[in-house]
Amino acid sequence: MKIAIAGSGAMGSRFGFMLHQAGNDVILIDKWDAHIQAIRENGLQVQYNGTEQTAHIPIYYPNEVKDQVDVIFMFTKAMFLGEMLEDIQPIIGEQTQVVCLLNGIGHETVMKEYVPLENMLIGVTIWTAGLNGPGQIELEGTGSTEIQNFIPGGEEKAKEIVAVLKDAGLNGIYSENVKFSIWRKACVNGALNATCSLLDSTLGEMFETEQAVSIVERIVKEFVEVAKEQDVELDFEETVEYIVSAGKELGHHYPSMHQDLIQHHRLTEIDYINGAVARLANEYGFEAPTNALITEFVHAKEQILKVK
Amino acid sequence: MKIAIAGSGAMGSRFGFMLHQAGNDVILIDKWDAHIQAIRENGLQVQYNGTEQTAHIPIYYPNEVKDQVDVIFMFTKAMFLGEMLEDIQPIIGEQTQVVCLLNGIGHETVMKEYVPLENMLIGVTIWTAGLNGPGQIELEGTGSTEIQNFIPGGEEKAKEIVAVLKDAGLNGIYSENVKFSIWRKACVNGALNATCSLLDSTLGEMFETEQAVSIVERIVKEFVEVAKEQDVELDFEETVEYIVSAGKELGHHYPSMHQDLIQHHRLTEIDYINGAVARLANEYGFEAPTNALITEFVHAKEQILKVK
Repeated sequence: MKIAIAGSGAMGSRFGFMLHQAGNDVILIDKWDAHIQAIRENGLQVQYNGTEQTAHIPIYYPNEVKDQVDVIFMFTKAMFLGEMLEDIQPIIGEQTQVVCLLNGIGHETVMKEYVPLENMLIGVTIWTAGLNGPGQIELEGTGSTEIQNFIPGGEEKAKEIVAVLKDAGLNGIYSENVKFSIWRKACVNGALNATCSLLDSTLGEMFETEQAVSIVERIVKEFVEVAKEQDVELDFEETVEYIVSAGKELGHHYPSMHQDLIQHHRLTEIDYINGAVARLANEYGFEAPTNALITEFVHAKEQILKVK
Repeated sequence: MKIAIAGSGAMGSRFGFMLHQAGNDVILIDKWDAHIQAIRENGLQVQYNGTEQTAHIPIYYPNEVKDQVDVIFMFTKAMFLGEMLEDIQPIIGEQTQVVCLLNGIGHETVMKEYVPLENMLIGVTIWTAGLNGPGQIELEGTGSTEIQNFIPGGEEKAKEIVAVLKDAGLNGIYSENVKFSIWRKACVNGALNATCSLLDSTLGEMFETEQAVSIVERIVKEFVEVAKEQDVELDFEETVEYIVSAGKELGHHYPSMHQDLIQHHRLTEIDYINGAVARLANEYGFEAPTNALITEFVHAKEQILKVK
């Protein structure tokens, strides 16, 4: 199968690598000069569960790609989704399936502008991936990837992609309700990421404070209210319990937004997590003041730290 | 006049010093060992508008004081008000006037437990004062001090105290509506202090962000709603404008809560500023989610920084 990975950072490179090793015709697409140069010169270097591997996969800038592909997996940062889809129009044919695997909520709005509804798929992955430097990734542990066609009628094609993911060891799952999984993951991120970033703390330090559970509850409550408007039934109690136990289990870990914002002074995806809840609440005619305030604080912090 | 200063940090020492220089019989009360020892050995050393002065004013631990006084000015940190009043019961006579000049809202509740209503006064000061070390304060600029008797009938005694403040150069003002001034000052502090602490920013850095005005508006809106329940009419537009212009004017300045929490890892007065608004809103049957969240974040940060 001819596959493009649009956004080939750590996670995109994992998918590209595993799909390539399984015999698919894969191309990587990215905009990071040093990364592209390293992969072109030395191949993608992968520390794969303790082994060292090199995969020679073609990598292109978005404006270089020309040949239509069967499937595109979108793995950009949320704020660059539209720009990427704009740039790679030449490879999106009438039959090309485009799978959105970005973090956060509400990417359909952007996807719709570039992809016919019947070729859109949305999904969520719980695989992890680390980037050690340009062209170098580190892959450990296991995970799975749920996907679903965006509108009825696309089940068959979705299941073909699930089979390709399974063949590549990526544990594809066809989901009857992927929106639930997307919302749940966003809610977990929304409760932990911005909080640890603003508190400049690990998850463990956060959950040692007396206020942690109450802060999580305030955030989750609004996610539940907004999800409900989208016919997604998040269970408040269960989600809070899951977040609290996950947070305690990953004690020494700094969430990815802390790494982005506080450690590396990079732009965050806050507008697609807490910010999306605040914005959607307004669209549905109510307020999500906790997520609105957190979003404003994170954006203010981005400016104070002069993020790139 | 026989005057006690209960809580003789920077601001208490300013009042003690100026009232002492004006010929009053002043005693200082505090609990900080090094400060007490320094003042007992070398006097209170004051950098007073560029001059160096030394004032030999008696200073006591709260449990050492015995002789009733005419007036007590309360200048403790908000969380230590009750403890201080408990300790200094011997000096509170039937006629002793007790003036609460603490930052924040809602100290009446604590005051009432120790002082007859007819001897209670509340007030607010806009003087500043700096502490350079134990026994050493730095006084610059100018200010004023508004006070009012807590219940009708005490106007005459309040005006006597105003006269004493005037004689000492402390620009006493008898206020017909001191609650307004207290709320307004708390609102200004509530909009700036916690925000700069959580963002780890100067006021200037905060107001260079696109979100600053919106964050201020969210906070002030809830102060206005709760103040209204206490028959205090804060003007939303005017207060926001004042805060924004004050914040920009004091650009390089870190608010006092930033100094306490972030720089010196000390407990904050958040429960008497944003926390008081959240708590009072609940008592009046509504929510103040912005101030509630900010209060929880500041308390969480206190614990992460292991404040003393």
